[in-house]
Amino acid sequence: MIATVVGVGLIGGSLAISLKEKGVANWIIGVDYNEENLKRAQELNIIDEGSNLEDAMSRSQLIILAIPVDALLQTLTSILDKVGPQHVIMDVGSTKQKLLQLVTGHSKRGRFVAAHPMAGTEYSGPDAAVRNLFAQKTMVLCDVKNSDEDAVEMIESMVDKLSMRTVYMNAEEHDLHTAYVSHISHITSFALALTVLKKEKEQGRIFELASGGFESTVRLAKSSPDTWVPIFKHNRNNVLDVLEEHINQLEQMKKLLQDEDYETFYKLIQKSNKIRKILK
Amino acid sequence: MIATVVGVGLIGGSLAISLKEKGVANWIIGVDYNEENLKRAQELNIIDEGSNLEDAMSRSQLIILAIPVDALLQTLTSILDKVGPQHVIMDVGSTKQKLLQLVTGHSKRGRFVAAHPMAGTEYSGPDAAVRNLFAQKTMVLCDVKNSDEDAVEMIESMVDKLSMRTVYMNAEEHDLHTAYVSHISHITSFALALTVLKKEKEQGRIFELASGGFESTVRLAKSSPDTWVPIFKHNRNNVLDVLEEHINQLEQMKKLLQDEDYETFYKLIQKSNKIRKILK
Repeated sequence: MIATVVGVGLIGGSLAISLKEKGVANWIIGVDYNEENLKRAQELNIIDEGSNLEDAMSRSQLIILAIPVDALLQTLTSILDKVGPQHVIMDVGSTKQKLLQLVTGHSKRGRFVAAHPMAGTEYSGPDAAVRNLFAQKTMVLCDVKNSDEDAVEMIESMVDKLSMRTVYMNAEEHDLHTAYVSHISHITSFALALTVLKKEKEQGRIFELASGGFESTVRLAKSSPDTWVPIFKHNRNNVLDVLEEHINQLEQMKKLLQDEDYETFYKLIQKSNKIRKILK
Repeated sequence: MIATVVGVGLIGGSLAISLKEKGVANWIIGVDYNEENLKRAQELNIIDEGSNLEDAMSRSQLIILAIPVDALLQTLTSILDKVGPQHVIMDVGSTKQKLLQLVTGHSKRGRFVAAHPMAGTEYSGPDAAVRNLFAQKTMVLCDVKNSDEDAVEMIESMVDKLSMRTVYMNAEEHDLHTAYVSHISHITSFALALTVLKKEKEQGRIFELASGGFESTVRLAKSSPDTWVPIFKHNRNNVLDVLEEHINQLEQMKKLLQDEDYETFYKLIQKSNKIRKILK
């Protein structure tokens, strides 16, 4: 099968590598509005050739859209306008409600499968693409009832070959849950980085003292604004809701420290320790 | 050399393993008020024998205090009262100002070296002790001008054998910098865990969706309140200061989302990306 990956960055590039390695596709066409990224992806052997979307669609069966969610919103309708019954279109976007609202009722809606692999790193671009990014991770498939059965089956078979688990949700659930387990983590990392950069003038001292704990809470702050601003924009209400709750929790801790109420602080930490049951 | 480790948990236990492996000591006596931990440390071959502090001090040259900072404040003076010129006492506490104020002017102050290894995990107890926890990490030595030269040299030689880097600071600097690069990370993780636990009733869904990003920002929330409440207590002013700044940063992001000012949000993320220069 010939597959096209639109957007040859971290996620698209990593998918291209895995699709080829796991035998899902034997030829990968890359499409990217950024000519340099496209060239680089070819140099790195992530894709077999670079082309434009029209040519790529005329020759491939599976088209994966791995572009920021604002770009998805701008292009998905016009892409669907051009698909035939042989095509399956899948996205990998981090927000789903607006996107699926947009294509509701489109005559080709059935050819589209909304997907979100819960995997990534804080890096971006083709050089960030890595082997095995998806193995043992979760692929969320959204509102599959609105996709054609054969299209869903093709994606399920792909997910299976990538050694991923599948979780089915509607778009609303997806956006709510990802606000909790992904989007807020990025907000706190960005804010923590800004806090430390602002407060700490002698950066060398941070570097000397920063150990694993600091690094792990702040590493997401390296993430690209091109990816994340559109996500926050499209999941604004959920993100605001979780952010508000998070600020409340921090305010509560601040109050306990101000009041020197260490007994309640102790109980609060014990309560937060329950996250052990959820994380490995 | 015979060394004593008081507190055979994550840090004390890991130090005991390394001291033996790197040839710093050939016999390790463990002391712990928790009899079960002491027994467990012996079963795990982390220590060679368990004993009480008096007996241990009568036979060892190096005594490492790896107990929570509140326990350190309660016991350091009485320990110093008993030291002889053959002893070197070192702590591994995460806060230094109160501790060093406490022993200022003590007749045996010179035998004490205040140390803080910038290494750890979110686990605790003897079972959390691991090999090579300290290699390539930083050991902060505080106010060494107030320690005897031979005592500092012994600790420096130990640090060297553990393949650690040494950084020298005064206690005030230490407490300020660790508030930024360690203590605030723990506060945000505890708060993030509480946020998610409160907001998310269907815990199974978190588990299904939680990927690397969530795990890395929240893993410190598994840390023990026995360790961390005393740290926040003893570094209260610095922690409050950094926490306030962090809340301000989050409030700013919230405001930008409310106002849908995505342009400024983009610039803020770009600014936070500068943390790349500091982290590897």
